Amino acid sequence: MEKFIQIEGGLHSVRGIYTAGVSCGIKKGNKDLAIIYSEKESQSAGVFTTNIFRAAPVLITQKHLQNLKTQAIVVNSGNANACTGSMGLKNAQEMAKITAKALHLAEGNVLVASTGIIGTSLPMDKIREGISSAAGQLTHIGPDKAAEAIMTTDTFPKSMAVEMNLSGKKSYLAGIAKGAGMIKPNMATMLSFLCTDASIDAQLLKKALQEAVDQSFNTITIDGDTSTNDMVILLANGLAKNNTITEENTDFFIFQEALHFVTRQLARMIIKDGEGATKFIEIHVTGARNKKEAKHIAYTIAESPLVKTAFFGERCLWGRIIAAIGYSGVSLEPDQIDLFYGPIQIISEGVSTGREIEVAKILKQKEIKITVNLNIGQEEAKILTCDLSKEYITINMGYS
Amino acid sequence: MEKFIQIEGGLHSVRGIYTAGVSCGIKKGNKDLAIIYSEKESQSAGVFTTNIFRAAPVLITQKHLQNLKTQAIVVNSGNANACTGSMGLKNAQEMAKITAKALHLAEGNVLVASTGIIGTSLPMDKIREGISSAAGQLTHIGPDKAAEAIMTTDTFPKSMAVEMNLSGKKSYLAGIAKGAGMIKPNMATMLSFLCTDASIDAQLLKKALQEAVDQSFNTITIDGDTSTNDMVILLANGLAKNNTITEENTDFFIFQEALHFVTRQLARMIIKDGEGATKFIEIHVTGARNKKEAKHIAYTIAESPLVKTAFFGERCLWGRIIAAIGYSGVSLEPDQIDLFYGPIQIISEGVSTGREIEVAKILKQKEIKITVNLNIGQEEAKILTCDLSKEYITINMGYS
Repeated sequence: MEKFIQIEGGLHSVRGIYTAGVSCGIKKGNKDLAIIYSEKESQSAGVFTTNIFRAAPVLITQKHLQNLKTQAIVVNSGNANACTGSMGLKNAQEMAKITAKALHLAEGNVLVASTGIIGTSLPMDKIREGISSAAGQLTHIGPDKAAEAIMTTDTFPKSMAVEMNLSGKKSYLAGIAKGAGMIKPNMATMLSFLCTDASIDAQLLKKALQEAVDQSFNTITIDGDTSTNDMVILLANGLAKNNTITEENTDFFIFQEALHFVTRQLARMIIKDGEGATKFIEIHVTGARNKKEAKHIAYTIAESPLVKTAFFGERCLWGRIIAAIGYSGVSLEPDQIDLFYGPIQIISEGVSTGREIEVAKILKQKEIKITVNLNIGQEEAKILTCDLSKEYITINMGYS
Repeated sequence: MEKFIQIEGGLHSVRGIYTAGVSCGIKKGNKDLAIIYSEKESQSAGVFTTNIFRAAPVLITQKHLQNLKTQAIVVNSGNANACTGSMGLKNAQEMAKITAKALHLAEGNVLVASTGIIGTSLPMDKIREGISSAAGQLTHIGPDKAAEAIMTTDTFPKSMAVEMNLSGKKSYLAGIAKGAGMIKPNMATMLSFLCTDASIDAQLLKKALQEAVDQSFNTITIDGDTSTNDMVILLANGLAKNNTITEENTDFFIFQEALHFVTRQLARMIIKDGEGATKFIEIHVTGARNKKEAKHIAYTIAESPLVKTAFFGERCLWGRIIAAIGYSGVSLEPDQIDLFYGPIQIISEGVSTGREIEVAKILKQKEIKITVNLNIGQEEAKILTCDLSKEYITINMGYS
């Protein structure tokens, strides 16, 4: 994790990447429209929501990505343009078209993303004005302007950039992301846009992105809800002038590691900013028969409202974790299970060690690691989640 | 549903059933130990938790039920005697033994149940005192004394009794139940004890109970957590002197219907008393390919924290219901879906009807029916649930 130099500037740290973030009136007073622009056509790859009901912008972006010549991404927050029928598709297409026109690009080289409330048509007058305004404000100076404009219930912008050395050339990789509810495995209410100036073959770019997403955004859960709009996009414009990565050589390895690092950091930020979250929790299941069972048990624990609420209350109610393991559906022997809060073992071979007082201290921390050893195999999985607080209810009972 | 005369008295309405409920100090000040006693040995049947980690009392009760001669059930609340290892098993066995001794029964004719916190050993001194006290207070007069003593976070006792006419004889069926958290399909944190004075063959009793449970307790969810202690027990002591039901004749049909009615009513009470619940919600999925998919979609909607929180906030955020359908994993066409809040259609073939103002009125009601028509088949399923409120968090962050 420490192999890369973390740098300032967000997406602007990448050569040839310009951004703008403006307020066009979808969300009262806050920034709600962003453009990310690459001065050069980019290889591009995407990973999308597994929700069957993909929002209109997801459909348009999946189509345009096939060109592999992306030069801009236009994103609005405050309205997801999901469940909006044929009008929604027309509007998403129009967002690409207007952006393309403003930036003198081919329509197919523009990707579109939306996030926010489901089922309401986009206010296209505002969107048109926003795109026009953003296109005029694109800049490469200072911190990037997009991270803030894509936020919904997020409380802070999420941005991460690193420097890589690829075949002797300095190269940069940066990303932004947004949460903060409807966060569950398989691309759940989140958007993330990643840019690099590395030169890399499109197939390898796609492979690297899928692997990075699987070990970052696909290992987190806030509330178990999977949204209709999630996407992760990675653009590579080649301006670093490194030897183009066309095989799985050392440069590819460095690039993949950098991408792992950036996506993991963004995923952690999403969990830290989970709606109402007061605790950052890692669930580590070890000693499993296979990875699938390990991951399933970790998710079952991470998504139990009772487990999450106990973390909020800072209570050592380990029985709720044991109960969740027990209803996960995985065949297990209770009397083989070990359970740890941080380094403190509370359950040894299915029986309490009575160390509740030590656990109580761990539970006061902001970051808590739970380790479950099933002691039936060699496989493991880690899932990141947060607690369930009253604030989550407040945020979601009134969100509109 | 209206075929049976609902009567007062709870379990006492059944001939030969005596109850006692006492406070023995497990829960400060509240009743926490109950005995249900039949003056005659009873045919008995049970349905148990699907959690792999079955609590000690579940294991003992499953063993004793094989005798088919149950005469008493001893239940404590405040401590689940779950995840308590060999000491837990010994204690559960001892509960049966002490109760048997106090009532001059064979140990194997006593069933044991516990509910409450997981992972702490039973305070056996208190339990012994409680059993002795309860055994001396058994009564058949007035309302039954057990419904209150089995409560944990429940806010009201749950009891239901009906009169049946079996082959010209008046016969009675009654039950009590407790919730109120860790409530999910397949026998989740709940106990229910049912008694009847009907005479019925043991195999038919078992069959009737399983069918009744499948259409009542197994169609509800509060928080998606399945407990280690759930059980439903049905005793039939034959004191009604009806012609013993030995085949699936008219009497069996009447008995099954009565049992459906009582268990459904108890299941409804559990949901109405769900931890922190302010709304009673029925999710009805119709037009499905098969029952399994219909039930799975209904549960996915019913367990979405975002859907539940929107009900608490009385907000018409139908996009959350559509998103939940979309991530259920069932293959569907979005543009075939109809969605209703009460009688108001908000989605027609995947597109909003714009009737939010009418839906807002429905959302102010205490009982709300949601109907989803998938329009791809003929099968359907109903699930009962409640909203997710701040009070749920308050109850569960501090419960101990």
